[in-house]
Amino acid sequence: MRLVRVGQAGAERPGALIRDDLFVDLSDIVVDFNEAFFASGQIASLPAAIAERENAATPIGGRRIGAPFARPHQILCVGLNYRDHAAETGQAVPPEPIIFNKAPNTLIGPNDDVVVPRESQKMDWEVELGIVIGSRSSYLADETEAAAAIAGFVLVNDLSERAWQIERSGQWVKGKSAPTFNPAGPYLVTPDEVGDVLDLDLWLDVDGTRRQTGSTSTMVFSPAFIVHYLSQFLALEPGDLINTGTPPGVGMGLSPQIFLHGGETMTLGITRLGTQTQRVIPASAR
Amino acid sequence: MRLVRVGQAGAERPGALIRDDLFVDLSDIVVDFNEAFFASGQIASLPAAIAERENAATPIGGRRIGAPFARPHQILCVGLNYRDHAAETGQAVPPEPIIFNKAPNTLIGPNDDVVVPRESQKMDWEVELGIVIGSRSSYLADETEAAAAIAGFVLVNDLSERAWQIERSGQWVKGKSAPTFNPAGPYLVTPDEVGDVLDLDLWLDVDGTRRQTGSTSTMVFSPAFIVHYLSQFLALEPGDLINTGTPPGVGMGLSPQIFLHGGETMTLGITRLGTQTQRVIPASAR
Repeated sequence: MRLVRVGQAGAERPGALIRDDLFVDLSDIVVDFNEAFFASGQIASLPAAIAERENAATPIGGRRIGAPFARPHQILCVGLNYRDHAAETGQAVPPEPIIFNKAPNTLIGPNDDVVVPRESQKMDWEVELGIVIGSRSSYLADETEAAAAIAGFVLVNDLSERAWQIERSGQWVKGKSAPTFNPAGPYLVTPDEVGDVLDLDLWLDVDGTRRQTGSTSTMVFSPAFIVHYLSQFLALEPGDLINTGTPPGVGMGLSPQIFLHGGETMTLGITRLGTQTQRVIPASAR
Repeated sequence: MRLVRVGQAGAERPGALIRDDLFVDLSDIVVDFNEAFFASGQIASLPAAIAERENAATPIGGRRIGAPFARPHQILCVGLNYRDHAAETGQAVPPEPIIFNKAPNTLIGPNDDVVVPRESQKMDWEVELGIVIGSRSSYLADETEAAAAIAGFVLVNDLSERAWQIERSGQWVKGKSAPTFNPAGPYLVTPDEVGDVLDLDLWLDVDGTRRQTGSTSTMVFSPAFIVHYLSQFLALEPGDLINTGTPPGVGMGLSPQIFLHGGETMTLGITRLGTQTQRVIPASAR
């Protein structure tokens, strides 16, 4: 199942995508794909509802696609979670997951404009596999329980301002939380349709030049490991988003380094999780 | 004005405290002290509403007091923001604010039990002045605009697990986000009733022994500075909480170090912001 939200920002209608471009509206039975929805377990009844409405499906066409879930309670991220990316940045693979946060209001749709923050010097891209939590998770017993707590997976671009992240008095959140810094979507794919989550290709182009190429097969910590691990330190809420780290090819890792200043177009994708295209808007144009 | 929420967890009624112990119920005109409430500007009309209802005020008595605002969009924290606390830990005063996050679902009432997380070794206390944001704040022009964006101030205990914060692969959020780790309240005090926010005494006792003594006069970065500063990196939402750092006397800073393992009672307070009392419940008792 692929859940989508279609419509203008703040007024998206929840639904599902069937075949290539057909939208099944579920807004008569689902308020939104938000914390209360995931907590309710209603997701289990949606395949039947989608089948009933299949004849009323309409092409998405030119309509805006939002993030496939509402602003979450929290966005957690894993740092240095790809062996080849750690090597690229000259850092050792961490002995256990590095965790940091992004402000939840960074969440935008997959093809919305991203905005260079004022005074930004080193804005960078990061294609990532996102985990969306399906049920409240505290002290999960093992990775089997953790896998069962995952509602689905989503393509995200974990945008970063490297100078703010690294050079401005410690703790990464400062460089991760600018408005528009977390495009997500186009759809939330349930685990049964993702298949082997440790065998997905990830890629990201800037202005048509391939910058990131990777595979979840080089992840250090798997999604189930990460969810189980996090649940020992904090309680995950239904609808929470976890960005699981980025493969090689970020701008900071190039020689010479390349950063986003406005005017660029990013295109990115993950196997079976769809693609995104974002224009980068200079700070002065806001 | 002192805003309070009274009732069982998840079912608190919003109101105001007048005189020493009299609760004015506002639940007929306020859904909750949440993001929508602060965004609406309704707070400006509350003094008149409270005056109208004054004759119906009732003693709080033994009723539970919740955090004085609903779970916020984000909880941000400032590290090492007291000159005497930085000296105590042997660290230099940072050139600009150190920012980190806590999970928003750590928020509990001022006198609720706090729970030692499983496997915790170094649970620690931190009395702090909390800022509650009154309006969406992005790229505020100066500290005057920042001061106007503050809805009020609140007493918080920014509980921490030092081993998880410092010894477990970087980024502090891991040791700051366990359930129950952010008691707040008893009330949210509007700036006009706080008076000089840079001349408040803070204190914290563990089992009757004074552990923390401080004054906001030794803060490195003032609340208005912090709000203006943060708004350059991210957008603050109405109802967001900012914990502004702790004065000297945390358990990690004692020689020998002292940590919480369960069975202790913490009592803490700030001038004009009230007091809190929390029992510490061992992990095994949950």
